[in-house]
Amino acid sequence: MLDLSTTVLEETIDPSNWEDLRETGHRMLDDMIDYIKQSPDRKVWQPIPAPVKEALDVAVPKEESSLNEVYNSFQQNVLPYALGNTHPRFWGWVCGNGSATGMLADMIASAMNPTTSFGEHADLYVEKQVLDWTKEIYGFPRSSSGILTTGASLANILAITTARNFYNKEIRKKGIRNINGQLVMYASAETHSCLQKAVELLGIGSENLRKIAVDENYQVRIDLLEEQIKQDKANGFLPFCIVGNAGTVNTGAIDDLETLASIAKREGIWYHIDGAFGAVPKLLPEYTERLKGVELADSIAFDYHKWFYVNYDVGGVLIRNPQAHKEAFEINASYLAHHERGIIAGDLNFNHLGIELSRGFRALKVWMMLKEQGLEKYSRLVRQNIQQARYLVELVQANDQLQLMAPVPMNIVCFRFYKEGLSADKLNALNKEILMQLHESGIAAPSFTVIKGAYVIRVAITNHRSKGEDFEILVNEVQRLGEHLLNID
Amino acid sequence: MLDLSTTVLEETIDPSNWEDLRETGHRMLDDMIDYIKQSPDRKVWQPIPAPVKEALDVAVPKEESSLNEVYNSFQQNVLPYALGNTHPRFWGWVCGNGSATGMLADMIASAMNPTTSFGEHADLYVEKQVLDWTKEIYGFPRSSSGILTTGASLANILAITTARNFYNKEIRKKGIRNINGQLVMYASAETHSCLQKAVELLGIGSENLRKIAVDENYQVRIDLLEEQIKQDKANGFLPFCIVGNAGTVNTGAIDDLETLASIAKREGIWYHIDGAFGAVPKLLPEYTERLKGVELADSIAFDYHKWFYVNYDVGGVLIRNPQAHKEAFEINASYLAHHERGIIAGDLNFNHLGIELSRGFRALKVWMMLKEQGLEKYSRLVRQNIQQARYLVELVQANDQLQLMAPVPMNIVCFRFYKEGLSADKLNALNKEILMQLHESGIAAPSFTVIKGAYVIRVAITNHRSKGEDFEILVNEVQRLGEHLLNID
Repeated sequence: MLDLSTTVLEETIDPSNWEDLRETGHRMLDDMIDYIKQSPDRKVWQPIPAPVKEALDVAVPKEESSLNEVYNSFQQNVLPYALGNTHPRFWGWVCGNGSATGMLADMIASAMNPTTSFGEHADLYVEKQVLDWTKEIYGFPRSSSGILTTGASLANILAITTARNFYNKEIRKKGIRNINGQLVMYASAETHSCLQKAVELLGIGSENLRKIAVDENYQVRIDLLEEQIKQDKANGFLPFCIVGNAGTVNTGAIDDLETLASIAKREGIWYHIDGAFGAVPKLLPEYTERLKGVELADSIAFDYHKWFYVNYDVGGVLIRNPQAHKEAFEINASYLAHHERGIIAGDLNFNHLGIELSRGFRALKVWMMLKEQGLEKYSRLVRQNIQQARYLVELVQANDQLQLMAPVPMNIVCFRFYKEGLSADKLNALNKEILMQLHESGIAAPSFTVIKGAYVIRVAITNHRSKGEDFEILVNEVQRLGEHLLNID
Repeated sequence: MLDLSTTVLEETIDPSNWEDLRETGHRMLDDMIDYIKQSPDRKVWQPIPAPVKEALDVAVPKEESSLNEVYNSFQQNVLPYALGNTHPRFWGWVCGNGSATGMLADMIASAMNPTTSFGEHADLYVEKQVLDWTKEIYGFPRSSSGILTTGASLANILAITTARNFYNKEIRKKGIRNINGQLVMYASAETHSCLQKAVELLGIGSENLRKIAVDENYQVRIDLLEEQIKQDKANGFLPFCIVGNAGTVNTGAIDDLETLASIAKREGIWYHIDGAFGAVPKLLPEYTERLKGVELADSIAFDYHKWFYVNYDVGGVLIRNPQAHKEAFEINASYLAHHERGIIAGDLNFNHLGIELSRGFRALKVWMMLKEQGLEKYSRLVRQNIQQARYLVELVQANDQLQLMAPVPMNIVCFRFYKEGLSADKLNALNKEILMQLHESGIAAPSFTVIKGAYVIRVAITNHRSKGEDFEILVNEVQRLGEHLLNID
């Protein structure tokens, strides 16, 4: 018989010299701790030079390299050209900062290297623990189901899928075409585009997402919603889901979540909340009233990598009805059959609760950060960000060259540089140029949006490194750039 | 005006003492390097004691803890109860081992902490680089599109979505109900359950996934496929996609990929390949013939955390027609609008190529591991695993108490303990008990499946730590357990 050990060379990916690996690893760790620690001392962002892009566009490597060589290439071509969201003056889109603890947790999770799908291993219990904690935070019953995802986009998709499959239990088998009518979903016009992606993916179609207009506070118009549902029912459409916003992406608006809950209940349809970042102030007593209704939802999607400042990527979804959750996704295959003992024992089958079978151990960083910081400190940090938004509003309002462009119910501030007599187009171009120069100078990184036709500078504060002075720097620089650009124009 | 810096305490998640953090971090890194290095010395797996589960089922923490306390809890309650796939004798399902380099890459990626969706930052170019390398490996043109995912399940879903939306460009807007007929997809009965999940998610319905029977080699029956397409067309169904398997989950069978390509071409429908692990031998000249046709597909889904041994989670999809890919997912929102300059410049908008907006930097570990190992070494490692499968076949065939239960075209071996005169049920129960005791003793971790009604021990070898002697240990232990269980029965 073939004796494999003598006929082939037994190779491995493990290092031939573990002490060399250890030395390089410790150097990397020191560098990364310095990188995080020194975030405030760097420019927020810088453009990528052409030679760097060329170095990242080469043929697939055939031969081996040393880890040190690989790391050198990383240090030269990757590290200096980051997105910049570790910086105290990064306020673009809605990004968290991450933390050193989160980084260490990711290192540990990667060393253990499980796939967190099914079976009997501790990582699954850590995920359940994190989900149970999240139920406490959002006021969901312990009997609810849930699963972690890469983020709220995927979490929203899982929730809407559950709503669809719960509405009609034949859909999984027969498909949408064979149910007796057109499904329709309701959400405000300010709802995140990932909800449109959800209805497109699910075969419902974007024209069957009813985008209900908002009021002056960017909250969904309840009267228009009720009218639309009435009209749709009269026309034979099948309303299956209402989506409420706990924090819209443009302005942080919170819909009237309690009223939405009662409408959904009355109509007998699923009530989902997109709380990607904006349900987190549920931690604060002063937001109890405004976020009332979160605890009434059938499902809620959220991120930890935004306002819990956990490292990318990790979000999740809670679903009140565990049976509905399971029935939406469970598939039994002979190679995954449940056993009472061994590695495949255990009841935490996350593969039955979503659309991924391979899943990394992203629960660990949430578990470690929540344990280390505790909810009381998280409450203070979230409150601090909301107070910073109010501070920025004051700075804007105290400056007659700046205009506040939308109400600020939470942590998002939209403003612009303003000069009387300039056309709408000129104002838009001017503010866009201000933003570009803010980015290019590396001083600050807000993002932008369009509000009632106006290009605005948008500051979304989910940043545990921002200090009061950072907002002063922003406002001073916007004013300086605005004046400078007007002068050279 | 409010001076924020004097009215509120400015807190952060950053450590108050960076040197304490650094000390704990280095201790963690040493522990994790030891953990990986000492994998062969541990039991593959052990059950989780009840007190550990209780420690992972407590109320959400309110107060702060030190990082050392958190780490102690991890060391006590999480680390010892891993899935076990870092071990040289873990061959369950299809899992890779990960590596120390992958762990360090995950640490670094987490320190940089980007969301890899859109804009102008180096992580996006690293992802493009990894995708371009993968095109070289699978013979896709450089003009193809692609995106990384958590794994092949999600990758398959993105491919089938693209196929569906390409078939009828009205589906995104109008939904499936409004197209003129029922979509049907074709795949062999041995196809992974994630493809069924895909058609269920997409509103097509599982009964419209035609599961075509396989031949004695577990390859799709081409004659039955052609007959089914013909019959479906005659009955007014709309064939939109054929799925080929490059490595089925049960036995590693490779469909006749080239013939499937020509059928799809003739019928004018999308040709997708699920190559989760089994397309990787495209690296080997001796598999050129068998994997012919991979390079003809419209799309291919694959994992790096399986047979490239990269740490969980990272897979991806390549799509030949970049326009079709983009048109399947792109949504333009004012808060994400493209700019020519600043952070949002750049053409690598992965948010337009999938269903996630938040995405971690999972490309880095693939980039670092491919650079460090190079394709030549990867080829040797993949060949080594295939040779190990053949060695295991020889060991099984040389032992008259063991039965080989399916052909072994690649790296998956299905066998069982056999005793003449035992009923089918008794044999199934006996082999299940053998597997349970293999797991419980911590000696080896194959998984199982059911082949023609027989419960079999299934050994899937995507493990860079396995050596020839590990398979000898497995075979000896299966034989010993089988005899022992028969004696005490």
